[in-house]
Amino acid sequence: MTTDLELSDATPWDIGADDDKLREECGIFGVLGVRDAAATVALGLHALQHRGQEAVGITSFDGQEFYQRKGIGHVAANFSTGSAIAELPGTMASGHVRYSTTGGAGLRNVQPLFADLASGGFSIAHNGNISNAMFLKRDLVRKGAIFQSTSDTEVIIHLVATSRYPTLLDRFVDALRLVEGAYSLICMTPEGMIACRDPLGIRPLVMGKLGDAVVFASETVALDVVGADFVREVEPGELIQVDLDGNLSTHRPFGKPNARPCIFEHVYFSRPDSVMGGSSVYQVRKAIGAQLAMESPADADLVIPVPDSGVPAALGYAQQSGIPFELGIIRSHYVGRTFIQPSDGARNADVKRKHNANRALVAGKRIVLIDDSIVRGTTSLKIVQMMRDAGAAEVHMRIASPPTEHSCFYGVDTPERSKLLAARMDVAAMAEFIHADSLAFVSIDGLYRAVGEAERNKACPQYCDACFSGEYPTRLTDLADRESPDQLSLPVGKVA
Amino acid sequence: MTTDLELSDATPWDIGADDDKLREECGIFGVLGVRDAAATVALGLHALQHRGQEAVGITSFDGQEFYQRKGIGHVAANFSTGSAIAELPGTMASGHVRYSTTGGAGLRNVQPLFADLASGGFSIAHNGNISNAMFLKRDLVRKGAIFQSTSDTEVIIHLVATSRYPTLLDRFVDALRLVEGAYSLICMTPEGMIACRDPLGIRPLVMGKLGDAVVFASETVALDVVGADFVREVEPGELIQVDLDGNLSTHRPFGKPNARPCIFEHVYFSRPDSVMGGSSVYQVRKAIGAQLAMESPADADLVIPVPDSGVPAALGYAQQSGIPFELGIIRSHYVGRTFIQPSDGARNADVKRKHNANRALVAGKRIVLIDDSIVRGTTSLKIVQMMRDAGAAEVHMRIASPPTEHSCFYGVDTPERSKLLAARMDVAAMAEFIHADSLAFVSIDGLYRAVGEAERNKACPQYCDACFSGEYPTRLTDLADRESPDQLSLPVGKVA
Amino acid sequence: MTTDLELSDATPWDIGADDDKLREECGIFGVLGVRDAAATVALGLHALQHRGQEAVGITSFDGQEFYQRKGIGHVAANFSTGSAIAELPGTMASGHVRYSTTGGAGLRNVQPLFADLASGGFSIAHNGNISNAMFLKRDLVRKGAIFQSTSDTEVIIHLVATSRYPTLLDRFVDALRLVEGAYSLICMTPEGMIACRDPLGIRPLVMGKLGDAVVFASETVALDVVGADFVREVEPGELIQVDLDGNLSTHRPFGKPNARPCIFEHVYFSRPDSVMGGSSVYQVRKAIGAQLAMESPADADLVIPVPDSGVPAALGYAQQSGIPFELGIIRSHYVGRTFIQPSDGARNADVKRKHNANRALVAGKRIVLIDDSIVRGTTSLKIVQMMRDAGAAEVHMRIASPPTEHSCFYGVDTPERSKLLAARMDVAAMAEFIHADSLAFVSIDGLYRAVGEAERNKACPQYCDACFSGEYPTRLTDLADRESPDQLSLPVGKVA
Amino acid sequence: MTTDLELSDATPWDIGADDDKLREECGIFGVLGVRDAAATVALGLHALQHRGQEAVGITSFDGQEFYQRKGIGHVAANFSTGSAIAELPGTMASGHVRYSTTGGAGLRNVQPLFADLASGGFSIAHNGNISNAMFLKRDLVRKGAIFQSTSDTEVIIHLVATSRYPTLLDRFVDALRLVEGAYSLICMTPEGMIACRDPLGIRPLVMGKLGDAVVFASETVALDVVGADFVREVEPGELIQVDLDGNLSTHRPFGKPNARPCIFEHVYFSRPDSVMGGSSVYQVRKAIGAQLAMESPADADLVIPVPDSGVPAALGYAQQSGIPFELGIIRSHYVGRTFIQPSDGARNADVKRKHNANRALVAGKRIVLIDDSIVRGTTSLKIVQMMRDAGAAEVHMRIASPPTEHSCFYGVDTPERSKLLAARMDVAAMAEFIHADSLAFVSIDGLYRAVGEAERNKACPQYCDACFSGEYPTRLTDLADRESPDQLSLPVGKVA
Repeated sequence: MTTDLELSDATPWDIGADDDKLREECGIFGVLGVRDAAATVALGLHALQHRGQEAVGITSFDGQEFYQRKGIGHVAANFSTGSAIAELPGTMASGHVRYSTTGGAGLRNVQPLFADLASGGFSIAHNGNISNAMFLKRDLVRKGAIFQSTSDTEVIIHLVATSRYPTLLDRFVDALRLVEGAYSLICMTPEGMIACRDPLGIRPLVMGKLGDAVVFASETVALDVVGADFVREVEPGELIQVDLDGNLSTHRPFGKPNARPCIFEHVYFSRPDSVMGGSSVYQVRKAIGAQLAMESPADADLVIPVPDSGVPAALGYAQQSGIPFELGIIRSHYVGRTFIQPSDGARNADVKRKHNANRALVAGKRIVLIDDSIVRGTTSLKIVQMMRDAGAAEVHMRIASPPTEHSCFYGVDTPERSKLLAARMDVAAMAEFIHADSLAFVSIDGLYRAVGEAERNKACPQYCDACFSGEYPTRLTDLADRESPDQLSLPVGKVA
Repeated sequence: MTTDLELSDATPWDIGADDDKLREECGIFGVLGVRDAAATVALGLHALQHRGQEAVGITSFDGQEFYQRKGIGHVAANFSTGSAIAELPGTMASGHVRYSTTGGAGLRNVQPLFADLASGGFSIAHNGNISNAMFLKRDLVRKGAIFQSTSDTEVIIHLVATSRYPTLLDRFVDALRLVEGAYSLICMTPEGMIACRDPLGIRPLVMGKLGDAVVFASETVALDVVGADFVREVEPGELIQVDLDGNLSTHRPFGKPNARPCIFEHVYFSRPDSVMGGSSVYQVRKAIGAQLAMESPADADLVIPVPDSGVPAALGYAQQSGIPFELGIIRSHYVGRTFIQPSDGARNADVKRKHNANRALVAGKRIVLIDDSIVRGTTSLKIVQMMRDAGAAEVHMRIASPPTEHSCFYGVDTPERSKLLAARMDVAAMAEFIHADSLAFVSIDGLYRAVGEAERNKACPQYCDACFSGEYPTRLTDLADRESPDQLSLPVGKVA
Repeated sequence: MTTDLELSDATPWDIGADDDKLREECGIFGVLGVRDAAATVALGLHALQHRGQEAVGITSFDGQEFYQRKGIGHVAANFSTGSAIAELPGTMASGHVRYSTTGGAGLRNVQPLFADLASGGFSIAHNGNISNAMFLKRDLVRKGAIFQSTSDTEVIIHLVATSRYPTLLDRFVDALRLVEGAYSLICMTPEGMIACRDPLGIRPLVMGKLGDAVVFASETVALDVVGADFVREVEPGELIQVDLDGNLSTHRPFGKPNARPCIFEHVYFSRPDSVMGGSSVYQVRKAIGAQLAMESPADADLVIPVPDSGVPAALGYAQQSGIPFELGIIRSHYVGRTFIQPSDGARNADVKRKHNANRALVAGKRIVLIDDSIVRGTTSLKIVQMMRDAGAAEVHMRIASPPTEHSCFYGVDTPERSKLLAARMDVAAMAEFIHADSLAFVSIDGLYRAVGEAERNKACPQYCDACFSGEYPTRLTDLADRESPDQLSLPVGKVA
Repeated sequence: MTTDLELSDATPWDIGADDDKLREECGIFGVLGVRDAAATVALGLHALQHRGQEAVGITSFDGQEFYQRKGIGHVAANFSTGSAIAELPGTMASGHVRYSTTGGAGLRNVQPLFADLASGGFSIAHNGNISNAMFLKRDLVRKGAIFQSTSDTEVIIHLVATSRYPTLLDRFVDALRLVEGAYSLICMTPEGMIACRDPLGIRPLVMGKLGDAVVFASETVALDVVGADFVREVEPGELIQVDLDGNLSTHRPFGKPNARPCIFEHVYFSRPDSVMGGSSVYQVRKAIGAQLAMESPADADLVIPVPDSGVPAALGYAQQSGIPFELGIIRSHYVGRTFIQPSDGARNADVKRKHNANRALVAGKRIVLIDDSIVRGTTSLKIVQMMRDAGAAEVHMRIASPPTEHSCFYGVDTPERSKLLAARMDVAAMAEFIHADSLAFVSIDGLYRAVGEAERNKACPQYCDACFSGEYPTRLTDLADRESPDQLSLPVGKVA
């Protein structure tokens, strides 16, 4: 979920991924059928920490009552102790990590969201974004609904609460029929767990087995860490219900539309040790690097990744090109708050604090620098300069994705379009902007080849690649409303 | 408000009033028409701190948006700094102190409660208790309402949100018609402030003027502290609306029922420097003491108050009887957490920590000990013992209220009936229980005389005196439900 | 102890006593021979909280090792829990409350101070002030001593550490011979406890018995609260040693000089339920009030104390004069941080927040207002105004001590002399300054009569009354140095 | 510094480096001649964070006074804000990161240590360990010295304070003559900065220039990050004095002994982007890997590093052997507290949380696994198992250092000897213990060749390699004392 209008302030924390990156907004994890389910959820969320670093919540159910605990910051800071887990008894639990604003008030937006419905407790954890949430909220409020959060996800709860269908499952499907956008969901009720994925399958969701227990997670790496075996992906448009005895039933309320999973998961969001859509993310990234080496070779001495996300593509580029792979940039293990800059000296200290040139290696060399993407271009500019300051003779930048020209409205934190470097200038101008001797991006067909397709099907693309192509696979109702003259007139309280 | 079912655990904090007392649950304060209204509210709430020591909240409105801040603990700990007040801009603000449990989770029950209704923001601060809240909540949840808190007060918000009347004021009155019990309310909307008092006027509420600004407060002492002038009481059943320009209109949606204000406000809850129902609380307490001296004289050397609440009645007793008033018990200014008891020695250290005998004065004397009430009797027992340990020759206990035999359901924290000493035994047995040489309570007619009546009107008592008489002036629907076989079946989450 | 030069900043906390008062700087308490001695010390210090509200420390010894815990704030906030006490095992413990600066750094100045000497651990808690500490420190530092704190008390430790005498007791006496000023000390070594009082006995110290255990405390009230029996005062110039088996030995290394205990302990510092120098503090204060009524009668309707410190003197004044005693000012139980002032209205809100007029009582009356002392006069001014605002017809101020014209250098926090109202003007001018209809102070002989003397012995006063008389009973070496041209040249680090 | 006897408890924090590693205990950094020197020190310490993660302190001097601030945890958590830096004014500052225990009490052991000497303030930051500290402390305490900390470093301060030489520099050299062991020091006095290195130069220290300012740091990477240029290493036995105007003078009080710098800095401690002893650490590690490939080849499909410390050696091994380098283990960016283990499933979840197998890559492959060292062997065992669980056909472990058979007493955190795997068994048994198909360590001569020597000079080794050889280059007085019958008899307080 995503549409918090309050979340405009930049956080003072460097959240561990690089600042100038697109950022996945959420990761979700659930398990049913293990003792102290919350402990397993905590480990699973920790493995998904790269999908959201700013807040975390876990809800559990012990057969009688629901328990919940939320916190600002990392999973390890909030859920590693026995006492934290002891607050969350039960054999069913689910949790959520999110990239979001800080502050005590913000806790009401931290997921899972929970409500006491007439049918009993209802917990929901959401990865994605509902693109008509404001439209639906306006209508619900007019009918007397009182919202606790500013999250788009809460709309689903109110739709469930006010649906007239007799069973909870019917009410849930009734609610989903009204929402548009991207959603992978893990819900809990007193009867069990429900996992589902929007009809296009934009955001990922996989199912695993841990002994007799059922596990759902955003990525397979979370299954690995908790010791679960991968079973299969939850399919686009599929809804899987698991009762408290572990019996599964699957539902397809939306038929079988053509799927459009997010291709950027392969480029950057997912961990390299995950398997997504049947392919190793690491191998796909190496294949993108190899593709890039074929499409855009460079006459150079060393292939150097911008760590850590550029490493697999750089290995692919090096192996394809025969140019040695070397660590020309060393990444600090210790990130954390942005430091105040000294008044004297220290040019670009803030970048150097995270990435430092391996001077002894780089000096006098012609280098190919591999990164996964360029968003605003500000970091690329500083990294190229750092290589030159370290004595690099030539710097050839190669990017393991096509130019990022469009914003994402499906649960990814993107700057507004006017701040995307590729939306502002062509590749030649970008090369000049970042002071590279040359710059090249992998082609969109090259990217599709790396993920195993022959080419991009223009009529009906196999992936959501809207950030590159501008072709959004759903309606964007709230965006259209916002751009129309009849503005949202709801008073929006700052009250937490 | 009061019915938090979670609030069963005793708090480890000694909250500044004595443990073995009935406790007012809330104080409320609002102001419209001053710069930095929240700073005035903070001062006003501080003056009402004796009405609720465990949590505090303030909501403000700056003409465009609502702002809110809540905290656990005293007003001074949460709202004394400029930065805290700076979070609450605007010329209209209201706040609430409550006696309640601690813990981050509890914040959602801290008032004022706030909701975004279709008509805009709505804030509510409540002193009292709605005696059919569970009954109403069950019905609202069945219709799709999602509750954020376990507070009875939230019922009013949902009733307003789902009412079909056209104006906010009509919807608000529509909601109040459905609730039974005690309520003094200060609400805020984007149009202004609404203050009202239940038809019986069980809990107090006064109006004042601060220059051109309008002020509402539970007691007049809060007007004094902020420098406001007392105008009049909000009358039982009256609803006063103040628009953003300060224009007042008054409404009487419930006609003019006979009022039944709480008589215990005069005995203990209110500060002695407040004026309530036209009488000085201090003078009434002195009058109770004088009444007690006439009804139950004692042959003694000294009149000693149990500080601080027994002081005015003791002065009245001393002046009436001619026996000298002396401070035979010294109260520490420093309360705070209950200390762990040393393993050796230190009998009753926990009482002595707060009240210590003035041995040099008491030794060898026959004393009259004056307290305002006896609840469980545990403290009286220890105080009498302390006087004997200090060498008192005789201890005659005189109580400035009738025996407390019944629980309160109108916003006062009372132990269950079976723990009230007066519900378990007669006066003679109580005297023996606390080891007093004699014990007497003021008569109920004596109490009515002290507040200015000729006697208690048995047919239609002038005050709510249910804690003494057991005559509750309203229906107690939830209590009746709880005692009936068809229990509440709502699943109640522990989720915060 | 007292000479922290860093302690210049006003604390934002209203420390529970009134701002415009002289303030005792410390209270000390020790016990040897009970299980969990630290729990008893915590209770004892709590009873001495009025002697120092800003920091607290306890040291314990379990026969093998010393343990220590210190904190900023009240005893209850730092030492009420079982886990805090569990950090301090052993049957011997001592502690200290102090009025002092806040902040983590300040902890190094919080007492008891501790050092590992060649003879083993050495703990010291000090009430008083050493008036040649800077002189001694300069010399010690030149010889290689490294100070941990800026406290005058640490000088004693270094003098002990560097003394050449063979036994610890000899080294301790050797150290005390070098220091001048006021000191009541409770020390601990691996052999037991040492309590002592400076030759003039300026600051108080009493001994008690708790079963077989020995207790030392600044005031008898601390004995009461822990359930100990008063044995006797530690005499001026006496040093009492208690070994781990509880055997006492007494020493008089300074002979038998004439004692000069602080007379202000009777006026204000001590709790009214303490017995000091054989007299009840409460009775002495009543006697001062009676003396004042005889010396300076007033034609008035009511005698009103400035609560709480003025209450006993007001009772004495009322009983002597026959004018009724009434609570015309109500003191709030809830102090705490100073609030930010609202921008509109609220004249003197900060005083009213603590003291509020009982308007219904005061209006139209001629009142005698009784307070214990006038320091800067700022509070008196506001209190008189508050009485007038409440409608008092006349305000006659009577003060239960002579004019405070001089600073104290013996462990009491006094403003510099130029800020003392009585040092700046005569009584008539003071009356005008505070806008009183009349003003009178008790005479110094009247004060001596109230404490049981026939009159003040001018040649050799029975008490230290330097704050009234300017006659300091010891040399003031550091003060003389500071006023001489050859200034302290020690670099003073801000390092904590 | 190191000898804190209290530091025995394991910390619950995973400190960011792997648990089963030797750990450098400290990093130091100083600068003289820039505005807001503390901001530069904070950045420099951040770049040295890998040398100590548990506590950090900075001292500054503004020409008049010294200021200090210390904290538990990372530099970023304590010194990144403007307000933290504002507490540390001045153009000279130095700081220290340490690996140490947590807790408020521990702050007194956090460096820089500071003392007010007769000559003025004296600040000292120490990397290393003094191996006769207990011996010296005993003597100092007997003469009256009072220690504030349990740190070996404080011994130096007391030796300086009690030295009879006339100038501070003479007293400082006098002190150093008495100490044995390893020390790189950055000291500050009101006259300027002193940097020095023990006669054997066991721990590193370099000098740089930042404009006109002088910088000292443990490693060159800290110069890079603050934008300073490397000038040269402080030589073994050299003492460099810089006055407040930036004038340098160099002293060699110990003549020119043969240097013995720590060889493990090249193997693991230093960052790969540092230059040490004239060589790139990264290149040396690659050379060790290449050496290892020549000495101990393996018939395998992939070379896989244990990230991150094994990466450079793995690249060297891969380039030398021609076997492809691949990331078969993915390291999480998010470390933090150790999680509570779920009661079901999740074998080795705690290792997987940090390192996860890249299953798709590893399955069915014969792999060479490269790590820098084996300490206890517990992590190696789990990593080998993880590779097998992921389907590796064969696992050949190669270690880029000789077997670690001996403890370090020069400022490195080593388990006691009996816990070192290589001290308990031979290589064949170690291979069996960790379940590797084969295991080999680089030879000690191979290691010397990688750092640029022809071979190890047995008579007079060019490096301190005691952890491999057991040949300690200094006396170990305290160790000898501890193992002798006449134990330390000093009472050691637990007092903080």
